Amino acid sequence: MKASEEQAGAGVTRREMLGTAAWIGASAVLASGLGGNAMAEEAAKPRPSAYRGEHAIQPLPFDPKKLKGLSERLVVSHHDNNYAGAVKRLNLVQQELGSLPPDAAPYQVGSLKREELIATNSMILHELYFANLGGSGRTDGTAAGLLRAEYGSLEAWEQDFRQTALSLAGGSGWVVVAYDRPSDSLHNWWAWDHAHQVAGGEPVLVLDMYEHAYQMDYGAAAKPYLDAFLANVLWDEVNRRVESARSKKTT
Amino acid sequence: MKASEEQAGAGVTRREMLGTAAWIGASAVLASGLGGNAMAEEAAKPRPSAYRGEHAIQPLPFDPKKLKGLSERLVVSHHDNNYAGAVKRLNLVQQELGSLPPDAAPYQVGSLKREELIATNSMILHELYFANLGGSGRTDGTAAGLLRAEYGSLEAWEQDFRQTALSLAGGSGWVVVAYDRPSDSLHNWWAWDHAHQVAGGEPVLVLDMYEHAYQMDYGAAAKPYLDAFLANVLWDEVNRRVESARSKKTT
Amino acid sequence: MKASEEQAGAGVTRREMLGTAAWIGASAVLASGLGGNAMAEEAAKPRPSAYRGEHAIQPLPFDPKKLKGLSERLVVSHHDNNYAGAVKRLNLVQQELGSLPPDAAPYQVGSLKREELIATNSMILHELYFANLGGSGRTDGTAAGLLRAEYGSLEAWEQDFRQTALSLAGGSGWVVVAYDRPSDSLHNWWAWDHAHQVAGGEPVLVLDMYEHAYQMDYGAAAKPYLDAFLANVLWDEVNRRVESARSKKTT
Amino acid sequence: MKASEEQAGAGVTRREMLGTAAWIGASAVLASGLGGNAMAEEAAKPRPSAYRGEHAIQPLPFDPKKLKGLSERLVVSHHDNNYAGAVKRLNLVQQELGSLPPDAAPYQVGSLKREELIATNSMILHELYFANLGGSGRTDGTAAGLLRAEYGSLEAWEQDFRQTALSLAGGSGWVVVAYDRPSDSLHNWWAWDHAHQVAGGEPVLVLDMYEHAYQMDYGAAAKPYLDAFLANVLWDEVNRRVESARSKKTT
Repeated sequence: MKASEEQAGAGVTRREMLGTAAWIGASAVLASGLGGNAMAEEAAKPRPSAYRGEHAIQPLPFDPKKLKGLSERLVVSHHDNNYAGAVKRLNLVQQELGSLPPDAAPYQVGSLKREELIATNSMILHELYFANLGGSGRTDGTAAGLLRAEYGSLEAWEQDFRQTALSLAGGSGWVVVAYDRPSDSLHNWWAWDHAHQVAGGEPVLVLDMYEHAYQMDYGAAAKPYLDAFLANVLWDEVNRRVESARSKKTT
Repeated sequence: MKASEEQAGAGVTRREMLGTAAWIGASAVLASGLGGNAMAEEAAKPRPSAYRGEHAIQPLPFDPKKLKGLSERLVVSHHDNNYAGAVKRLNLVQQELGSLPPDAAPYQVGSLKREELIATNSMILHELYFANLGGSGRTDGTAAGLLRAEYGSLEAWEQDFRQTALSLAGGSGWVVVAYDRPSDSLHNWWAWDHAHQVAGGEPVLVLDMYEHAYQMDYGAAAKPYLDAFLANVLWDEVNRRVESARSKKTT
Repeated sequence: MKASEEQAGAGVTRREMLGTAAWIGASAVLASGLGGNAMAEEAAKPRPSAYRGEHAIQPLPFDPKKLKGLSERLVVSHHDNNYAGAVKRLNLVQQELGSLPPDAAPYQVGSLKREELIATNSMILHELYFANLGGSGRTDGTAAGLLRAEYGSLEAWEQDFRQTALSLAGGSGWVVVAYDRPSDSLHNWWAWDHAHQVAGGEPVLVLDMYEHAYQMDYGAAAKPYLDAFLANVLWDEVNRRVESARSKKTT
Repeated sequence: MKASEEQAGAGVTRREMLGTAAWIGASAVLASGLGGNAMAEEAAKPRPSAYRGEHAIQPLPFDPKKLKGLSERLVVSHHDNNYAGAVKRLNLVQQELGSLPPDAAPYQVGSLKREELIATNSMILHELYFANLGGSGRTDGTAAGLLRAEYGSLEAWEQDFRQTALSLAGGSGWVVVAYDRPSDSLHNWWAWDHAHQVAGGEPVLVLDMYEHAYQMDYGAAAKPYLDAFLANVLWDEVNRRVESARSKKTT
């Protein structure tokens, strides 16, 4: 999540921010052959939005003591280490991108852009994942209707969703139900890592299949984790996302 | 693009459709232990939308003789082989997914889901790529305003866009300018292959960096291809996409 | 590991083997238009070695109760679920590859070949990982000499090895020290998933950084896992691998 | 290929080397808080072998005018742009890795290590690819015997090899026949990009399926490129690689 100035870098220690800024600033200044006052001026220029790196860590949107079958220890570790780590990393990557010299080698640009994509999707998908937990797991409403239309029945949708999830067990990845505007439909998508995503789809139900999402509670047993996930889905939030996305169709 | 019944499978020869259907149908029927009449009944059931595989090949939205610096031979080969091939493949993959038995091995599900994602994004991104060509290359309007807001100036945006593109030269990938609803902004994204995409972003300007997009005209020289691409961008279409996507913000 | 006939499929239940064979055999036979006796004959033909899928699960080469800082529960789960699962999957994938019709769609070949590579490397790397555990962690001998030559000192090697490992924390991947024949040297290599590997390198020290290698004992804390791993390395085995690989240099 | 001191950096212009060294050196020195004389001393220290980045570009091992069905223009562009570019990039990446501060962020290490793997395999596989061209295409000798043992017949091997290659058409990747010491066998392996490779395999026959390997001569038509490749294979070199690799089996 992009943050306003005050919140900026909430999750990054002051030391980390300064350390990186010094490292990056120095190399950029040296690369440009500036010194003395020019260096100070360069540092004072406002960074464009693209390279600001001010995404703020969002708190868990539910009481982690209250999920069914997912322990507080697991959920808090997931949030504080994996999600928060991605936000902090994204901020550093975007700032480093902003300090690359105009003649940076293509591999320097490409490798940072790759990290930016990985960290951005990790941030976005984790936020959506946490925000679609905390519910009763009872499927109904707009999303249920669209899933029936796409898969024939909710049971058929759930089978496809579970099979996709289990194909990722023991490794990394996500299962994302995405809304597609042109066809006004929902579909289950497989992702091997954070960077995989359907083009133009709006993620409305997000399941984390990285092992950090369940190993602590379930070890290698992905099936009971899936049961627990589905029992905690907040379908009101899923429906809200679908309705927001479909209120305006691409023409 | 999903197609209506009449158009279904336009790009797949009848022989291909039948061959696959026979192969898939037979294995599904055997796996389920059915035979005789049951087999016929199973084959007669309508396939759910998710597994219908009826995406239709779209024609080029411009006269391929009229692009500046991109030859008819290149553009037609790109459309007929790489894009159309992805649509045909997607149809086959989705039909095969629909015929997997309920106890399919996880790797069978996962490998087909991966192919579905790759072919889907190849279809979508190619359609957007062709549709954002055929213009004058003069940047203005809504998109230009948002790019200035994100990168400081259009020159700074173009430098970032070109550097991202050149980091992919000699291999495969896409550069996608995507609209992000929560922050009402545009951003350049790197993709190593079809499956990479920012979560929830709406692609508004799409550049194909696979070698099939330029080798025939430019060999290994990616820079003049980039010049040609930018000189042909149809910014009216880019602006239309931005305006359509931003008319409703996720709340 | 390829197995002799007697051991074949040790880790796959009889039911799994039969189920898959029936499914695959049936589809191949139907695809070829055979029936009755021809079907029986087809099934009787010996499968070429490439598609036999008879890799046997190796037992843990040490007493899992005796590692320092890695629990029996973690190590046994890692072996029985993640490693053994890869071997079983590889066998099924190779058998399915062997039953593809000559006119299989390119995506059917490609997606299975991808699964074959992933499962093969998972099998090989897990076997090497377990076999380089169970020791004292004291680095000396041939490997230590080559690591000093490559990195300046063992401390410098360990810093590079640890940094590479930590860059994979929270996700998936391997760190592999590989022997390169042409230059008679050892080098640390990063891998994002099973399929990444340096071309022509002989893996001599293998560290699993998938979360299933440590989450059960350490949660998200990758650093103490790294300490535990290094304290258990069996350098005699590492040295044996180096000496075996270097005894004949490619000329 | 690692180079002796004299050859170092043959393919990188002096300007590129100095530019990068200055950029990297400055950031490292600043990060370490050194200045004045300490800076000079730091720069004077010899770089460990791991970070020297002195791989030399190998010339084409045959007369590019003399291949059957592969034009001089294509082959020279492939060598001078794609292969030579990978060697130059690898040198820069390894030098940058050598100048990372001890407290570099994990993403900085990981993204450079990824680039190192990609560029290393691109260098190695291109060198093997060029060196297994320039022959008559007639398969016999040690390799032919092992391929018959693995696939049943040379025809069956070639069908598997061609199917694997065609599954990569229109994108990127390699097909690698690799020798496996433990089982004394050859096997066809699929690779989606440079970084994919079977663990511990010795590549003995290498086919480049990136579009830069054929688009200039064949456009999107991968089949005639495959015919041309097979007609030019230098099986004496393939046999030499197999014999060298098998002369010492891992015990």
